[in-house]
Amino acid sequence: MFRRHLFGKVAIIGTGLLGGSLALALKKNNLAGKVVGSFRQEASMKAAREKGIIDEGTTDIRQAVMHADLVILASPVKVILEQIKDKEFIKAIKRGAIMTDVGSTKVSIVEAAQKYLPQHVLFVGSHPMAGSEKSGVAHANADLFKGATCLMTPVEKTNRLAKDKIKHLWTSLGANVVMMEPAKHDEALAYVSHLPHIVAFALMRAIPEEMLAHGSSGLRDTTRIAGSSPKIWNDICASNYRHILKAIDETVRSLSDIRKAIVDHDEPALTQALTQAKTKRELLEKKNG
Amino acid sequence: MFRRHLFGKVAIIGTGLLGGSLALALKKNNLAGKVVGSFRQEASMKAAREKGIIDEGTTDIRQAVMHADLVILASPVKVILEQIKDKEFIKAIKRGAIMTDVGSTKVSIVEAAQKYLPQHVLFVGSHPMAGSEKSGVAHANADLFKGATCLMTPVEKTNRLAKDKIKHLWTSLGANVVMMEPAKHDEALAYVSHLPHIVAFALMRAIPEEMLAHGSSGLRDTTRIAGSSPKIWNDICASNYRHILKAIDETVRSLSDIRKAIVDHDEPALTQALTQAKTKRELLEKKNG
Repeated sequence: MFRRHLFGKVAIIGTGLLGGSLALALKKNNLAGKVVGSFRQEASMKAAREKGIIDEGTTDIRQAVMHADLVILASPVKVILEQIKDKEFIKAIKRGAIMTDVGSTKVSIVEAAQKYLPQHVLFVGSHPMAGSEKSGVAHANADLFKGATCLMTPVEKTNRLAKDKIKHLWTSLGANVVMMEPAKHDEALAYVSHLPHIVAFALMRAIPEEMLAHGSSGLRDTTRIAGSSPKIWNDICASNYRHILKAIDETVRSLSDIRKAIVDHDEPALTQALTQAKTKRELLEKKNG
Repeated sequence: MFRRHLFGKVAIIGTGLLGGSLALALKKNNLAGKVVGSFRQEASMKAAREKGIIDEGTTDIRQAVMHADLVILASPVKVILEQIKDKEFIKAIKRGAIMTDVGSTKVSIVEAAQKYLPQHVLFVGSHPMAGSEKSGVAHANADLFKGATCLMTPVEKTNRLAKDKIKHLWTSLGANVVMMEPAKHDEALAYVSHLPHIVAFALMRAIPEEMLAHGSSGLRDTTRIAGSSPKIWNDICASNYRHILKAIDETVRSLSDIRKAIVDHDEPALTQALTQAKTKRELLEKKNG
């Protein structure tokens, strides 16, 4: 039999910014025979259908996965965890279907998948690092994954075919796939993603409202991600709290060092601390620019 | 007598990113008869001359201000304070010359100007909010001030002509001038500029070097200004430390609120804190975008 697409039917569970962008990207790159999206709200579903983001929409996740060859869980982390534990939902998935997710934390999701999914649902975790402070299907963009890094977290028991096909999927969408252990993923992401978000949220809260009008590009860039979805970040904080707390504590320590140097009028200590930061920032630019 | 320019000779004391950009902008907009820049390093002076950024260069600040109609102090804050107190330097400035500065803090500079400058040097403080994390005359740009806000801090005794001509100068370079009391300036800037810089420096220090490669655009934007000059920020911290310490303390408190909500698994409290931040960030975009 001749197969035109990498996947026949693809079900996207939770069609927001990431899910909607995936739908568009799958269709644009001709990777799926049919893309079905699930929605919590009828209005978003209607809008996504009218814009041609999905082929079919439903508010029933069990109906969405019926006969799907690939199921992509694209809701906030806590919802993904509930779905993996939802027996009726999992029962609706056909034998041999591949499943992945786009959650920003991986240990809890990979562990739940190992514990609750039947062997015939072939799971592998993904984390495409391609969000933005925007959310909702209205901001969906077919090129969102181009040039982005996608961290995949296969484990020993991960089905080889699932791993290869999902890697192929992300690569076809223009992402650079990097394999990582789930625990290592969560620790690293606590520092390079979760921490900057929490710091941006905290910084924004500390600034008196009446002074906002005097802000310039430095403030705007530093706090851009404080515009992110509280729902998504609530779930990330809950599911990766140990690493996040450690990262917060180190930031408070770093801030206290700087505070102490200012209080003591200790110019060499302050210069040293700021220079450390600048040097590391230049390294980030080099490794990342 | 017919005057072609707003100013005859302009002396820029400290020709780095801001000073060099001012030189280019003054010439481009035909606001100065001649622009002389002072430099600490011969090599920068040579480069600036070859690029046509200045008409004349010198490493002697007294020679730079000789016969100048306008003197612009464009060094880091601490150096500006030393120059205002430098009797030999001030003596070299002609009677009736106008003086302004581009320092990021204003109370210490305006107070020093009131205390140390003779009445015949007409000082008014300026703070063009147009820097970047880059520094040095090599990054000078004639359009740096276009669309930027320039905060001016005249006080009761400020000469009216000086105030009007400096306002005219910034407006002619495309900046939006806002008048502010020095104390109010330093308090507001502690929150909207100094604090974000310090938080970005602190955040960058807290991230382990080996994890930098996993960072994406959120981390890059949040820490962009951590690439700023330690020398400049040392001076800003020293000259505005009271307000900065208060702003740091409020940030630590804000971070602790978020930390507590995460530790307590208190989803409503965490959602509320993140929502406060997001709402304020949207307000910033509205007032500032």
